[in-house]
Amino acid sequence: MEKTSVFLIDQNLLPFTFNVHESRSYRDTCAAIKSMMVRGAGAIGAASGFAMAQAFMSGADIKKAKKAIEATRPTAQNLFYSVQRVFDAAINSADPARAAVNEAQKIADEDAESCRNIGKYGSKLIKNGYRILTHCNAGWLAFVDHGSALAPIYKARDQGKKIFVYVDETRPRGQGAKLTAWELKNERIPFAVIADNAAAHIMSRSKVDMVIVGADRIAANGDVANKIGTLEKAIIAKEFKVPFYVAAPISTFDLSCKNGKDIPIENRAEEEVLYQKGETKNGRIESILVCAPGSRALNPAFDVTPAKYISGIITEMGIIRPSANLIKSLINKKSA
Amino acid sequence: MEKTSVFLIDQNLLPFTFNVHESRSYRDTCAAIKSMMVRGAGAIGAASGFAMAQAFMSGADIKKAKKAIEATRPTAQNLFYSVQRVFDAAINSADPARAAVNEAQKIADEDAESCRNIGKYGSKLIKNGYRILTHCNAGWLAFVDHGSALAPIYKARDQGKKIFVYVDETRPRGQGAKLTAWELKNERIPFAVIADNAAAHIMSRSKVDMVIVGADRIAANGDVANKIGTLEKAIIAKEFKVPFYVAAPISTFDLSCKNGKDIPIENRAEEEVLYQKGETKNGRIESILVCAPGSRALNPAFDVTPAKYISGIITEMGIIRPSANLIKSLINKKSA
Repeated sequence: MEKTSVFLIDQNLLPFTFNVHESRSYRDTCAAIKSMMVRGAGAIGAASGFAMAQAFMSGADIKKAKKAIEATRPTAQNLFYSVQRVFDAAINSADPARAAVNEAQKIADEDAESCRNIGKYGSKLIKNGYRILTHCNAGWLAFVDHGSALAPIYKARDQGKKIFVYVDETRPRGQGAKLTAWELKNERIPFAVIADNAAAHIMSRSKVDMVIVGADRIAANGDVANKIGTLEKAIIAKEFKVPFYVAAPISTFDLSCKNGKDIPIENRAEEEVLYQKGETKNGRIESILVCAPGSRALNPAFDVTPAKYISGIITEMGIIRPSANLIKSLINKKSA
Repeated sequence: MEKTSVFLIDQNLLPFTFNVHESRSYRDTCAAIKSMMVRGAGAIGAASGFAMAQAFMSGADIKKAKKAIEATRPTAQNLFYSVQRVFDAAINSADPARAAVNEAQKIADEDAESCRNIGKYGSKLIKNGYRILTHCNAGWLAFVDHGSALAPIYKARDQGKKIFVYVDETRPRGQGAKLTAWELKNERIPFAVIADNAAAHIMSRSKVDMVIVGADRIAANGDVANKIGTLEKAIIAKEFKVPFYVAAPISTFDLSCKNGKDIPIENRAEEEVLYQKGETKNGRIESILVCAPGSRALNPAFDVTPAKYISGIITEMGIIRPSANLIKSLINKKSA
């Protein structure tokens, strides 16, 4: 953040163009979150905290601004967590604007530190030669730094372990094919993109040692909301006895949701299914219709994976099995 | 078939352009099968039978031609079945060309009749108001007429039942979004295309009454090779107690495969994952890169669904549970 501007990597232009967007107002930042220019649990958390700070700095109607920011992505827990924290820090302060900016910056710094620790704990699960499957993008693009699901992979690589990553394409928006592949290519970690349909086949031929995914919100009992398709991967991983891990900072937990049924699921525009965006041979970015003309589509953006399918949750405080008691004690330990 | 030409709907141009391709030689027909201009179990079976007949008519090296046709799509049982039948009928005949054409025509007629009966038996499983999920395209485009997985749906519709179809996009080639959606649109049956990732979520909210898919080859024990992703849908259907049916003519069974491990799986070019083909706003068909530049991909085209996940196989002789004994007695009954 600089003056009243927030600077964001425009993830909608990746992997074809790297561009940093300057967001000058909280409304602009809201638009960036809603359009998924900024996406990913931690990145949304940081951006929404800064959006709240922008609202305080500009003297906007704070209640209205808070509602507008919270309405951008209804499934993302980090968004609600950050907005509330910045709001609480500023609202009773003598200098609300300054308090808001400080708190937003603190959230961003904590996110980077949490992800670093997720990498440290998670890397202990990874043996040399592991073939790991991941879904969507929970790398450093999705956070302030390091990432959640990819942090253990980066750390294991730093430890000298050889790793191969199966990257789910992650339709409809293709965050695996576009963003995770882009990150791994930059990090020089060997990978292959696979159609979302191919994971069970690959597991059935026993070529996958573990699955690591991120999370958008985790209920008090350990049920996990994450990108659509996560539930499918979790069910098939269990069927083929492949360990299935969720990596997420503690800010992703939402104790007000008793279980996954309480987590609202965002339905996005059907155009995301009907059209695909990519680069033509001439280097133009085009959106093309990939369904029969006149088709309708359904586009649930997230699903809920019940705790019973999850081998463990990798957090910045350590790895826990997803149970209500362990989650509660972990959060108490964190806030102590 | 007309003189020595075979006429094929070019499925690579669908759903945007409807064009009938005239294939003048067995080599041309091989190319059409390989490029997936003609695709789908029954359509491949009919086209490969006619290709074999074209080879007899043109006085080609028959052994070489047979091998070339069989090499086009290694997973498709109907291909081997048809080529062998036409070969056997012609090779000892006084008029091989005529015998070959007659046999190829007979195979095509039988395919249409089989699919009609699959529709009749399968429709009994469908109640009014059913929401049915299907994967890939096993409609009339994939056969000579009626289809396999879609035949029961068409028949149930003719019986006045109201049906809604969830159409898996079926990446990488999108046969669900492109071909099944095109067929259902033409047939005026309500449907929604969904990302392949969304099936588990939709089942978890109990909105799916049954799954029907086709098959490319069925082993003696009832294991089914079909389009990549079928195995994932079968596993999640079992998890959510959604009945999972395979619809296929008896020509799809291959008793020489004891179980699914014996079925060869075709790996196709990685470009099918890296690129997507569709229509731009200006009506041009473009192929666009949908992965990070420089990405590699893996592209297994089929997977094997073990019999234990399958509620029943809908054939032209009736519906059976997938067990070695039942399959054997069914095939004996058919050939009796």
